Amino acid sequence: MRLAVDCMGGDHGPSVTLPACRAFLDSHPHAELLLVGQADALQEAASWSRCTLVEATEVVAMDDPVEVALRRKRDSSMRVAISQLKADEAGVVRADACVSAGNTGALMALARYLLKTLDGIDRPAIASVLPNEKGAFTTMLDLGANVDCTPEHLLQFAVMGSALVAAIDGKPDPTVGLLNIGAEVIKGSEVIKRAGELLRAAGADGHIHYIGNVEGNDIFTGTVDLVVCDGFVGNVALKTSEGLAHALAQFIKEEFTRTWWTKLIALAALPVLGRFKKRVDPRGYNGAALLGLRGLVFKSHGSADAMAFGNALARAYDAARNRLLDQVHDRIVETLEAMPATPADAAA
Amino acid sequence: MRLAVDCMGGDHGPSVTLPACRAFLDSHPHAELLLVGQADALQEAASWSRCTLVEATEVVAMDDPVEVALRRKRDSSMRVAISQLKADEAGVVRADACVSAGNTGALMALARYLLKTLDGIDRPAIASVLPNEKGAFTTMLDLGANVDCTPEHLLQFAVMGSALVAAIDGKPDPTVGLLNIGAEVIKGSEVIKRAGELLRAAGADGHIHYIGNVEGNDIFTGTVDLVVCDGFVGNVALKTSEGLAHALAQFIKEEFTRTWWTKLIALAALPVLGRFKKRVDPRGYNGAALLGLRGLVFKSHGSADAMAFGNALARAYDAARNRLLDQVHDRIVETLEAMPATPADAAA
Repeated sequence: MRLAVDCMGGDHGPSVTLPACRAFLDSHPHAELLLVGQADALQEAASWSRCTLVEATEVVAMDDPVEVALRRKRDSSMRVAISQLKADEAGVVRADACVSAGNTGALMALARYLLKTLDGIDRPAIASVLPNEKGAFTTMLDLGANVDCTPEHLLQFAVMGSALVAAIDGKPDPTVGLLNIGAEVIKGSEVIKRAGELLRAAGADGHIHYIGNVEGNDIFTGTVDLVVCDGFVGNVALKTSEGLAHALAQFIKEEFTRTWWTKLIALAALPVLGRFKKRVDPRGYNGAALLGLRGLVFKSHGSADAMAFGNALARAYDAARNRLLDQVHDRIVETLEAMPATPADAAA
Repeated sequence: MRLAVDCMGGDHGPSVTLPACRAFLDSHPHAELLLVGQADALQEAASWSRCTLVEATEVVAMDDPVEVALRRKRDSSMRVAISQLKADEAGVVRADACVSAGNTGALMALARYLLKTLDGIDRPAIASVLPNEKGAFTTMLDLGANVDCTPEHLLQFAVMGSALVAAIDGKPDPTVGLLNIGAEVIKGSEVIKRAGELLRAAGADGHIHYIGNVEGNDIFTGTVDLVVCDGFVGNVALKTSEGLAHALAQFIKEEFTRTWWTKLIALAALPVLGRFKKRVDPRGYNGAALLGLRGLVFKSHGSADAMAFGNALARAYDAARNRLLDQVHDRIVETLEAMPATPADAAA
């Protein structure tokens, strides 16, 4: 298995991505890497075994508009890294998955333009995980790629997400919930109600393990393995969670630093608080999947450090090793064959 | 000022509402209460001063469908309590605000049916507060009353919410943000983009203090005083927050009870953890406002204990004392006069 790594992406570029790649190679003795970026920035990796440097002269900045990434910077590390997933003139595909910490909009647009979507998929979606009370992770999609979704899109998300959980978490038949504002089937907008019908039908036919509606709190209860929602709602839920986690950490810190006595207690409690922190540390589950494309693209958080970026590499590697792409393809084909035709999507 | 209290509502009924009313009367020496419910359930309050018992023979159950509350249980405590806000044949209005811990759907439907909406308001909305990192509270609406919203609805929410913050938090010119998935004006769905235009126009005219788009994390950062969103997104954000808060509390508990040594540390840390807990305790800010009606209706959490229900009573009392109803009315009239006509709303 070989990963193409956009070494220039993210807030920190090679100062984070190269150490992460080095550690990843050490812990994955059968993995190979294509390190994509500017030649002088990657020099230190020139002598690494199981590593090939691929030059790209440009870098997509974190605040570059999508148009710049698509039309102007034709030799960007992000673009070249994604291109490694495509067959060249000789029909050779150089990498099995690609990882970038670059800007999400540009990555999604480039990946979609270069790789195209799988048959039966109108729009790719972004999937990631959040820790839950069961000591496991809840996978959620879409997290921001698609602001307006049709019921058919939500069904496709459910099928793709099921393949993702099966491939990465090793659960062959993950449970699926539709994010809604109540458990009853009459709840929600027209789109959500219709999506519920499609999901129930796909569940009845055995294509997904559909449980029904879930609510926001179920993400963290771990009621289901996979939560499906449109990109607007998913993005708000994700950022709301990040904001609350930050605020609570802030409150805890303020209370423990209030007096010399509370500081003393904090000192004693450090190991306990450290374990707690580690458990909810988003670096531990960094690496969102861009699903629905003809190639495996993983997105690291832009501010990722080497440990976080390494986790994104590991997730991409697991996905490639477990043939996520084939799994998504097979599940989509199987489900859609049994379903009514999907209306054409002008935006696709 | 006189509050009408649905004493039968909520998971616990009079065993919670009556002690809360008793404590409220003690701490609010100028307040009067109308206690609405079944005669035998309210007996202990018969001798209380500044209290009048109002009999209602029926109770809306927490799982009663809206239709049952609206059409079948014509003498429910919820219905009779709301009715106290309407002028009787002699033109006398018996209460200034109403509080219920009963089921939200039934309360909204009954309030809307009995009181009607204010001129210029298509749909009432539910507003509540969440604690933020600035040590203050962020008010948010809609939290679930309206699943699909037009841009005009979101503008109305912004105006009503501004009046609420002004009346209860004493901020005459609260800052307003539109919940979106990015700071740029080009972000979001068509409805959100158009709502942004309306809000900017209202802000430019000085009707609201509009800041621009905010994201999920801003709710807890305290970037703005008021966050405006549709009821689907608001409900998901609220429940996601509740779920995460619960999960984190669970994680902390698990870490502190892992060994005898961590339990010892927990014992020492109890006062600190207690302060933290108190700070984020949702009971401390219980009481959501149903805005846009010709009467002040406040909704307590169904599972509220006496302390939480007391806070809902206090919020309703503050709102009534600060003439929230007039403030909403005046702001709406002022803003809508300056705005393009609102399209008729079939669902209103």
